[in-house]
Amino acid sequence: MIRFNNDYNRAAHPAVLQALAADAAGSYPGYGTDRWCEKAAAQIREHLDRPDAAIHFLVGGTQTNFTAIAAALRPYQSVICAESGHIHAHETGAVEHTGHKILTVPGQDGKLTAGQVAGLGEAYRRSPVQEHITQPKLVYISFPTEYGTVYSLDELERLRDACDEYGMYLFVDGARMGYGLAARGGAVTLRDLARLADVFTVGGTKCGALFGEALVITAPALKPDFRSYIKQSGGMLAKGWLLGLQFYALFKDGLYFSICRQAVERAMEIKAAFAAKGVPFYIDSPTNQQFVILSPGQCQALEGKYTFEPEQETDGGMCVRFCTSWATTREETDALAADIAAL
Amino acid sequence: MIRFNNDYNRAAHPAVLQALAADAAGSYPGYGTDRWCEKAAAQIREHLDRPDAAIHFLVGGTQTNFTAIAAALRPYQSVICAESGHIHAHETGAVEHTGHKILTVPGQDGKLTAGQVAGLGEAYRRSPVQEHITQPKLVYISFPTEYGTVYSLDELERLRDACDEYGMYLFVDGARMGYGLAARGGAVTLRDLARLADVFTVGGTKCGALFGEALVITAPALKPDFRSYIKQSGGMLAKGWLLGLQFYALFKDGLYFSICRQAVERAMEIKAAFAAKGVPFYIDSPTNQQFVILSPGQCQALEGKYTFEPEQETDGGMCVRFCTSWATTREETDALAADIAAL
Amino acid sequence: MIRFNNDYNRAAHPAVLQALAADAAGSYPGYGTDRWCEKAAAQIREHLDRPDAAIHFLVGGTQTNFTAIAAALRPYQSVICAESGHIHAHETGAVEHTGHKILTVPGQDGKLTAGQVAGLGEAYRRSPVQEHITQPKLVYISFPTEYGTVYSLDELERLRDACDEYGMYLFVDGARMGYGLAARGGAVTLRDLARLADVFTVGGTKCGALFGEALVITAPALKPDFRSYIKQSGGMLAKGWLLGLQFYALFKDGLYFSICRQAVERAMEIKAAFAAKGVPFYIDSPTNQQFVILSPGQCQALEGKYTFEPEQETDGGMCVRFCTSWATTREETDALAADIAAL
Amino acid sequence: MIRFNNDYNRAAHPAVLQALAADAAGSYPGYGTDRWCEKAAAQIREHLDRPDAAIHFLVGGTQTNFTAIAAALRPYQSVICAESGHIHAHETGAVEHTGHKILTVPGQDGKLTAGQVAGLGEAYRRSPVQEHITQPKLVYISFPTEYGTVYSLDELERLRDACDEYGMYLFVDGARMGYGLAARGGAVTLRDLARLADVFTVGGTKCGALFGEALVITAPALKPDFRSYIKQSGGMLAKGWLLGLQFYALFKDGLYFSICRQAVERAMEIKAAFAAKGVPFYIDSPTNQQFVILSPGQCQALEGKYTFEPEQETDGGMCVRFCTSWATTREETDALAADIAAL
Repeated sequence: MIRFNNDYNRAAHPAVLQALAADAAGSYPGYGTDRWCEKAAAQIREHLDRPDAAIHFLVGGTQTNFTAIAAALRPYQSVICAESGHIHAHETGAVEHTGHKILTVPGQDGKLTAGQVAGLGEAYRRSPVQEHITQPKLVYISFPTEYGTVYSLDELERLRDACDEYGMYLFVDGARMGYGLAARGGAVTLRDLARLADVFTVGGTKCGALFGEALVITAPALKPDFRSYIKQSGGMLAKGWLLGLQFYALFKDGLYFSICRQAVERAMEIKAAFAAKGVPFYIDSPTNQQFVILSPGQCQALEGKYTFEPEQETDGGMCVRFCTSWATTREETDALAADIAAL
Repeated sequence: MIRFNNDYNRAAHPAVLQALAADAAGSYPGYGTDRWCEKAAAQIREHLDRPDAAIHFLVGGTQTNFTAIAAALRPYQSVICAESGHIHAHETGAVEHTGHKILTVPGQDGKLTAGQVAGLGEAYRRSPVQEHITQPKLVYISFPTEYGTVYSLDELERLRDACDEYGMYLFVDGARMGYGLAARGGAVTLRDLARLADVFTVGGTKCGALFGEALVITAPALKPDFRSYIKQSGGMLAKGWLLGLQFYALFKDGLYFSICRQAVERAMEIKAAFAAKGVPFYIDSPTNQQFVILSPGQCQALEGKYTFEPEQETDGGMCVRFCTSWATTREETDALAADIAAL
Repeated sequence: MIRFNNDYNRAAHPAVLQALAADAAGSYPGYGTDRWCEKAAAQIREHLDRPDAAIHFLVGGTQTNFTAIAAALRPYQSVICAESGHIHAHETGAVEHTGHKILTVPGQDGKLTAGQVAGLGEAYRRSPVQEHITQPKLVYISFPTEYGTVYSLDELERLRDACDEYGMYLFVDGARMGYGLAARGGAVTLRDLARLADVFTVGGTKCGALFGEALVITAPALKPDFRSYIKQSGGMLAKGWLLGLQFYALFKDGLYFSICRQAVERAMEIKAAFAAKGVPFYIDSPTNQQFVILSPGQCQALEGKYTFEPEQETDGGMCVRFCTSWATTREETDALAADIAAL
Repeated sequence: MIRFNNDYNRAAHPAVLQALAADAAGSYPGYGTDRWCEKAAAQIREHLDRPDAAIHFLVGGTQTNFTAIAAALRPYQSVICAESGHIHAHETGAVEHTGHKILTVPGQDGKLTAGQVAGLGEAYRRSPVQEHITQPKLVYISFPTEYGTVYSLDELERLRDACDEYGMYLFVDGARMGYGLAARGGAVTLRDLARLADVFTVGGTKCGALFGEALVITAPALKPDFRSYIKQSGGMLAKGWLLGLQFYALFKDGLYFSICRQAVERAMEIKAAFAAKGVPFYIDSPTNQQFVILSPGQCQALEGKYTFEPEQETDGGMCVRFCTSWATTREETDALAADIAAL
């Protein structure tokens, strides 16, 4: 069975495992106060052009999202999010569980627009009864989105402008950040995100690590006592150096970027094969997730040999996702391409 | 100035004020453990055919809504609500503040359908990843709705069936219950609500009282220790008998029903006047709130002499609300009707 | 039966009832945006020497306490409170329900000391693992305390100093503020409280109103968007002018001060009677609550004619509370004094 | 430097690392639905004599504690806990952050007594104003305690009886469970805990794993939809099999028990050395944590060569903790013993 079902079905990139194995005898202070976390943060910071950025390492994505969002908001403030946003659709109401409303807007290919943000900001600003509604204070986007699409630099800058205009924070969920940075045709860098976002994550779990998310905070208002939020929310790993070690290994010599770039190349091979065959795409994704619409017969033909994830029924058939990762090989995509051609 | 802006711009019906004045020298135990609360509950219970119903008196609507909803739910459970629902649109995220997600669906004239409820129930039931989404557990409707419309008995019964099918509670926000029961052409009674809803409110604030909402709980699972929820949520009035006294006065000799019926009659006079003039209705409401679309000129012509509430701009002009109450007189609606005719 | 069981067993002072009756025909905008609230706030502000103070009117004490406390704190911050404090002992965990820990210290006659505050502040400041504990950020005291005792001006100033030293807010729960200001031998004024506290309440419910608490905010950081907190917490009365009217009536011509002073005089008559008889006091209270220790026989002798509240068993008998209010007459205390003398 | 500062300063037992390395190429479904989690749960269940027990694997202790506690309680219910309890003293108010009050009682050697539980249960039961206080519903103990002490089987049975009498849950925090089971002179088994506790944890982080806590639920009422609580609270590891693999390796051939037993033996060697030297103990601990009171000179003499954790100043000097783990060798304790003898 060749696995394209998701990008977190394998342990970790060999370099990460090796780093952990090499340090098995190490002994460190706990809770992320060790030198590996420090080194990993320094290494990430080099890519940010923001020496002032605070960087924390947490275990999982849902945890990181709700911890950072709740830390940024006062009780009557809310989050703006696309209907397809992960915090709205896949995290068991974790943000609401922290007491905050999510204001959803229909996404465009999974993306929010600056106009939508401004619309909600303006509605609040003009409301004669502000105390009866929540104040939209944080814009949640993901990069790439749930549909694998990415914001252009221009789109991000306009979102930033809208946030500035209405006094909102811009939060970027980068659970798949590496793939977003490597998007075909994309030009957004970590430096851009550090310049435009107030807080964003650089995902490890889906990009080569066993687990772990790096949380980057650039907004001064969000930095104080952040470790208290992490501990209270259950996100502080006792053996925190395990996170530092992994991120250090991932960012050493740009491994994070290269393995994600490679995964996107593999995804482009799959995309090309489907395109050549004339299989319709659910969405045009330049990253490691490809969404196509298969007929029942096509599904059946492929599912004996490959795993892939059914998303939803559509008019034309079943929308399914093929997902690559650092572990995906050229041999695997070649095999798939051949079978696609033979559909 | 003649006031049609809302139904809570006057203190209280004279009978309520008289009851309070007559009892000014009374001395009672606190927190709703007095005999007036008991008598008021007994009087309401007579209309329910549910001797087992638990009845509590709280001060305000938002408070009553979030207290009852949060008491009914476990942290991962959510509320189904129309986009126009009061808890979603006008209560500063109070339900989310208690930790629960609201799942919104587009309303039909402000109303939810049994099909929408079943759709969300079925989606959860069939989800292979239930732990990643919230469990819809409580259906919130209001009677009448924000738009003044009411559910038919048949619609309510189908909602009840959907709730039964998916193990959900049916909550009815009756902030304007009296007007809903008196809806022109309506046939729903308190007895019906007590049979079909698990928990519902009988609003006092907008229906003749100074303040106060009666909360009726019929579902056995929602009754235990409910006073603890009220106290913890800040909804327990120290001098609780003030609530009992008011509701006793309101339900004595059916005053609650008659004053709301009269208010609906006044609203029908306004409705007839607008209809005769050919002014378009935003929605066809059979209760005390009438939503019409006025041109700027029409607005201007009426706003010197009457108060009414602007709701939102529409294609055809401004949607405004004219609202009657127990305090609205025939002279007032006659005057308005004459001025409408002269528009 | 003559009632000394508490100070909220009667409706309201006649002046308050009269004000409400006189305005029964008034029609106002809702939610506390009316001119009565404005006038009442202005009148209270005159006693504060703080033209910048924000004043809001809420319905009940528990509600006001948790709303203001939660609005002041970030999630990892906690409250310092005496073990006997109302928020710790009598409010169903409402503060914890908002997500905040209460750090209790043993009270001295129901009072916190500046040293206790400094001790907790210093412990946090020196902690090498701050992120594993909560940050004490708000000091909760009541004036008078649960035991009827009051802080001296000097004690308050030292608490203020401790708060300043450790960056904490000073919150004063004034549910019985009027009686505290009238404490026998006391010299604390509202002006002092407005100078020393960041936020405090001026209670209506127990001091002559039907219901209502005035919340005074002097700390600039606690003022923004406070109405949003009130609405979200369910503390915003639809017919808010009912609160404004009552407080206006209470503060007109200093009625609030005079009726509470009179109630303290009545309490002193009771105190003198018990002292003359040699009945032991549980605590030496200079305000309207008197706590004495009665033998079973003494209890029995008095309870046929008077209501009073049993508090707890002690070695010497039962600690009971006799409580006066604006409604307590000289005739009532004379009768009680005679019966005490005859014990 | 020889490390006795804590039991989580090293990565993991070699068998755990080996198991992870051996499975590096494995590919699994996510979120704990894999066969390693299933196998690990089955293996733990064998020690429980409770085939019905639900077993979940979470990442960290704080997270596991608040997730399970919050899942068990209704909003007005509270937790009984010793003042030294971890959830009260070291978790940044995480339990209160979920909305629940902790009722603390002074511990006896870090332990709660059945009498204390009954006292709080009885106080609630007899309270005439239950709605003004929280309902104690869950008893939190740790095994071993923060001070390394353990409950006897008899003490546990009496706690169970008290819980039964007052309708409370018994929760056992087993972050160091392995050391508690191996307590010198102890006789409590996992089987006992599974019989007596409603929910308990079997800690991995401090007992040989890289990270991870097994949560065992025996009470039927606490089982439904528990995965939803885990996900919502951020405790669900995407690559859940990493937890299953580790616990499988730890419980294979009883490794968990043997390495913890060995660590306790090492601790007993340290204890004997201090006792022989006449160094006073802060507490008499039969497990892997030893608390002694050192003079400044003794501290200085040892701190060049060994790490140990200062706890608090006492009258006689500094209370410090020496902690052993699976990684502690006989050579290390021999060296320490020699240096203690030479103090």
